[in-house]
Amino acid sequence: MSKLRFRISISLDGFVAGPNQSLQEPLGVGGEQLHEWVFPLEAWRRPHGLEGGVVNESTAVMEEELTNIGATIMGRNMFGGGRGPWNNTEPWNGWWGSNPPFHHPVFVLTHHPRDPLIMESGTSFTFVTDGIESALDQARRAALGKDVALAGGAKAARQYLQAGLVDEMQLHLAPILLGGGERLFDGVNSLDSLALVKTVAASNVTHLKFVRK
Amino acid sequence: MSKLRFRISISLDGFVAGPNQSLQEPLGVGGEQLHEWVFPLEAWRRPHGLEGGVVNESTAVMEEELTNIGATIMGRNMFGGGRGPWNNTEPWNGWWGSNPPFHHPVFVLTHHPRDPLIMESGTSFTFVTDGIESALDQARRAALGKDVALAGGAKAARQYLQAGLVDEMQLHLAPILLGGGERLFDGVNSLDSLALVKTVAASNVTHLKFVRK
Repeated sequence: MSKLRFRISISLDGFVAGPNQSLQEPLGVGGEQLHEWVFPLEAWRRPHGLEGGVVNESTAVMEEELTNIGATIMGRNMFGGGRGPWNNTEPWNGWWGSNPPFHHPVFVLTHHPRDPLIMESGTSFTFVTDGIESALDQARRAALGKDVALAGGAKAARQYLQAGLVDEMQLHLAPILLGGGERLFDGVNSLDSLALVKTVAASNVTHLKFVRK
Repeated sequence: MSKLRFRISISLDGFVAGPNQSLQEPLGVGGEQLHEWVFPLEAWRRPHGLEGGVVNESTAVMEEELTNIGATIMGRNMFGGGRGPWNNTEPWNGWWGSNPPFHHPVFVLTHHPRDPLIMESGTSFTFVTDGIESALDQARRAALGKDVALAGGAKAARQYLQAGLVDEMQLHLAPILLGGGERLFDGVNSLDSLALVKTVAASNVTHLKFVRK
């Protein structure tokens, strides 16, 4: 069975984005610190078409994260383009340019209908307006036997966690405080059936892997 | 120079006590889950006068934590006995019986004056009403060259963190959610000069050690 695999970077005080998110600062103020561990990694740079990079304790975690993923689910805010109905005259096509790094079908949770977007090299964006279970069904079918990645943001993740639909959760814990912003676990009162199975320590991040018991 | 060393168990969602703390449930609802990693440890049981116990990845962390401590600081709520002025007719003398496991001077932050309490085997409780810096000065002098432990709870810890007075912070991260309660880092917007230096992974807890850069 195709698994729903969720991974996200989170601060010590539980935030997955800093305060005051905007088009200029999509990760909120200070939010980029959550991801400082990932950008230098060769295992992240290569699939993003960038040269160079380092190999360290996080390499195997990143390689595992990118393996056997056939589709991705994300929230509207992560896809971007502001809130409310889509602007049809100047359409927002995501943060990633014409060749996004997914190379598989992506399902965007939104309240506002929009036709699918077909990008280069296998990436497509399908806009799902009938809820998280529908998005998961569609993503599972599109993944053709591979797993489905839940990319975030906080609101989408919370909904899947609350519904008990997450099969695997990888937290990348950054050793920083953000002091405000989007809390991942607000309104999620229990991990339910998710249990810690593996901890990987790097100098600037701790990877905590949870799987369904 | 005698260091101020802070250690506390914290949930994935940032709580160091569960909701609805009371005399019956001093750790709040579900708060005992934060400490499940510690009670089975031989390294914890021995200094508490208990037999048996296990040796695992947390053993060295616990032994380090208990080494070279000459005094302890804690908040009023951690010492217990409710809020407001002390009850002189039925005085509250702590949670620990006549022989508390400290065996050194303990300084309790409170707004309400009270005479010092001398317990068995070297433990004393001194009630400090003139603030966190005074408590730290008194604890440092009492520690006779050893370090000072900051035992919590959340409010006392926040004050020392906000004032930049913590030299070492050991977080024991329990892989659970509490969903509510006392947040350690509320109002602490930055770790300032504290940097992650060591991560120790056990099956049921992750130990994150920070020291002043």
